[in-house]
Amino acid sequence: MPSAIQTSVTTAVPGPATTAGLKDLNKVFDVRAAQLVVDYDKSHGNFFVDVDGNTYLDVLAQVASIPLGYNNPALIAASRSPEMVSALANRPAIGFFPDSKWLKLLEDGLLRVAPKGLDQVFTAQSGSEANELAYKAAFMLYRRRERGEGVEWSEEDLRSCMDNLKPGSPDLAIMSFTNSFHGRGLGSLSTTRSKASHKVDIPAFNWPKAPFPALKYPLEDHVEDNAAEEKRCLEAVEHLITTWYCPVAALIVEPIQSEGGDNHASSAFFQGLRSITKKHNVVLIADEVQTGFGATGKFWGHEHWNLSSPPDIVTFSKKAQTAGYYFGDRKLIPDKPYRQVNTWMGDTARVIICKAIIEEILSKNLLEQNVRVGKVLYAEMERLAKKYPALIYNLRGKDRGTYIAFDTPDTGAVVSSMKRQGVNVGTCGTSSIRLRPMLIFEEQHGMKPTSTNHDNYDF
Amino acid sequence: MPSAIQTSVTTAVPGPATTAGLKDLNKVFDVRAAQLVVDYDKSHGNFFVDVDGNTYLDVLAQVASIPLGYNNPALIAASRSPEMVSALANRPAIGFFPDSKWLKLLEDGLLRVAPKGLDQVFTAQSGSEANELAYKAAFMLYRRRERGEGVEWSEEDLRSCMDNLKPGSPDLAIMSFTNSFHGRGLGSLSTTRSKASHKVDIPAFNWPKAPFPALKYPLEDHVEDNAAEEKRCLEAVEHLITTWYCPVAALIVEPIQSEGGDNHASSAFFQGLRSITKKHNVVLIADEVQTGFGATGKFWGHEHWNLSSPPDIVTFSKKAQTAGYYFGDRKLIPDKPYRQVNTWMGDTARVIICKAIIEEILSKNLLEQNVRVGKVLYAEMERLAKKYPALIYNLRGKDRGTYIAFDTPDTGAVVSSMKRQGVNVGTCGTSSIRLRPMLIFEEQHGMKPTSTNHDNYDF
Repeated sequence: MPSAIQTSVTTAVPGPATTAGLKDLNKVFDVRAAQLVVDYDKSHGNFFVDVDGNTYLDVLAQVASIPLGYNNPALIAASRSPEMVSALANRPAIGFFPDSKWLKLLEDGLLRVAPKGLDQVFTAQSGSEANELAYKAAFMLYRRRERGEGVEWSEEDLRSCMDNLKPGSPDLAIMSFTNSFHGRGLGSLSTTRSKASHKVDIPAFNWPKAPFPALKYPLEDHVEDNAAEEKRCLEAVEHLITTWYCPVAALIVEPIQSEGGDNHASSAFFQGLRSITKKHNVVLIADEVQTGFGATGKFWGHEHWNLSSPPDIVTFSKKAQTAGYYFGDRKLIPDKPYRQVNTWMGDTARVIICKAIIEEILSKNLLEQNVRVGKVLYAEMERLAKKYPALIYNLRGKDRGTYIAFDTPDTGAVVSSMKRQGVNVGTCGTSSIRLRPMLIFEEQHGMKPTSTNHDNYDF
Repeated sequence: MPSAIQTSVTTAVPGPATTAGLKDLNKVFDVRAAQLVVDYDKSHGNFFVDVDGNTYLDVLAQVASIPLGYNNPALIAASRSPEMVSALANRPAIGFFPDSKWLKLLEDGLLRVAPKGLDQVFTAQSGSEANELAYKAAFMLYRRRERGEGVEWSEEDLRSCMDNLKPGSPDLAIMSFTNSFHGRGLGSLSTTRSKASHKVDIPAFNWPKAPFPALKYPLEDHVEDNAAEEKRCLEAVEHLITTWYCPVAALIVEPIQSEGGDNHASSAFFQGLRSITKKHNVVLIADEVQTGFGATGKFWGHEHWNLSSPPDIVTFSKKAQTAGYYFGDRKLIPDKPYRQVNTWMGDTARVIICKAIIEEILSKNLLEQNVRVGKVLYAEMERLAKKYPALIYNLRGKDRGTYIAFDTPDTGAVVSSMKRQGVNVGTCGTSSIRLRPMLIFEEQHGMKPTSTNHDNYDF
């Protein structure tokens, strides 16, 4: 039984084989972020095995990007399918010479789970790329509206853009929030605000940063303060849109700020963002790179917002194992061809994997499972937070599936200690531990640890 | 016999099935750049088959990104290998939890063909991403030198970068050339200078553009003029480096400017660039996204430059079927970890394909074949250029394998006419046809067309 795999840590962490492996690899590849060298063939379900033979329950899941566990039979079957072999051996330039099976692949996969109101898709290879493509769509839409429908580019536009100068290369901004993470490309990094070490030394666009609500926990004890905080932030958003030195073409926001510390806001806050962006013709981009594909108990994190009209663009990656963005308004397709295009426009091989993931999530009711397991996990964390209030506080993620995080004084110590106990967890923000289990995580994984090294998860 | 496949076009181009397929696809996916809907299962070697049953000799090769032909047996074998199935089903976050097989995969593949003097690699997913990663490495190196080795970031650096302001987000530039193409991300697009339609409406960094030599053809008739032109451009490069309003951290250049019109320069010009960049401590990036992996008759296009010391960074993608950059100087690894990293850092599945491509190129002597076939193809184009001087002129690519291009008054008409004759070619720049065949292209494909529609390639 896959779920019967036990955690087992019999060496130091990292063990000698990981240490030796990283030393060798370091000669040709930067390994300083590497934690463990993994034997993926021996890994299974929620557990991975390192080259020292240690088995870990994986509650980080390749930075929240493994949806269905290691060596999942459905994904192995998709990997062995004839369509996969063709996609790998005959990689098409999808935008120029699409495969005759491309439409059906989209319809059977990505479009089946398209967010409500968004019926078109643009495929990409990473969350960072998906966000930058979304920004470009917003910029082009802004200038199209400004010029007027059907009005051609001016000679000055065409000439100046070749020198990266106005008016062809306009001053237009993407607004993001404090503590947000939207990627590491030179454009997406200008919207990322989570950590200085990601940004320092890299040139950036002069784009505005709005305050994201800093809520107090437990939420039920701080209702008024939190409402006031969200009101303050919404006012700041509108103020920045109306006063920034250049037009704000789009606002990008994560349903839960993930890398930046698992920061939540209420549905009312997001409804406010939708209302303000509609009022000022600002494209609203929901960055679902980490929250999408069932991570919060709904397929899309923004479903928790209860909007009356959807975000204009929803970007995805990570658990999708591919990337891209959904949209509804056809005006987000540029007025002329060849402007939003690139050689590969995604990777058919990864879109095939994505289709298999979607089929599994839907047929195995993994959203329901995530809600159910999340409740158990959250209750258990609540119990531990009460027992160790100095070590576990600001518990977050109630009713957000297994998307749970808490603050602790020494995150590094917790991660190390948990690893020694056979559990791989990650940090986020400056003082948080995030639980980011796979969608196949079960109650027993949160409740009945079976490590040879310890009796329970208390630390 | 694969090479015996004949071209055969029996419908209008595009045919009714392509037209219907694109109409359906257009409801959910922008198809305006799409030329033909392809049945990849029926395609083979140098030929692809569209959904109307037409067979084309493919001399564009998915925008220069198919190295070994459709349904190549070695790539099919790699696609079916157990290591591929694992890479697809268990996609690792390579920088954090590397696969125990990762080092060997790099050693047996990408590192085997590392450009001379560059012994380290950073993997990525697209040429655009590879270039932006190279820019970031150059920016971090520049600031590291400026601060002094071991000097920590200042508080002001850390604070200001979170607001995208100086000094943390510094004014630093990447210099590129007129007519260059380096990608479409918001950073790479600021270095792309090939077409206004790629750039207009998109904010850009204020980075310098140096003139690329506009050589006159045939080269042997314009030796002095061309030398003067290259001297003028080199002087402009040095002038811009020393006078631009902010420091130039890197210069990026293609061995042959491809999207921008197949523009060549002499070895002396590139030697001059190496000399100027060394003198001013500017990182020299060779963008080999289109020229790499054997396209010019050598494995790397910059091998034609005969440099005494290598470029600092070489980026690759397209025919590699994966992407990334090579480098030698360990100072191009940032001083601290987590700064040059992302969730996936490439895709192991595509790196496995890349290894198989490298094995085929080396074991089948495909570089030699490309040189040999290129000579025949160039001679045949020279013959045609003499016969039709008003239609074929400025022939380029002598001694550059099959990397051949020419100018013609109406590129669109040539592409359409060639398609009707069963040959798929592409354009570049404003007035050029580029030949970008696969590495398995043979003499017969350039010399003995076997279409049912025509007797020869004359148009």
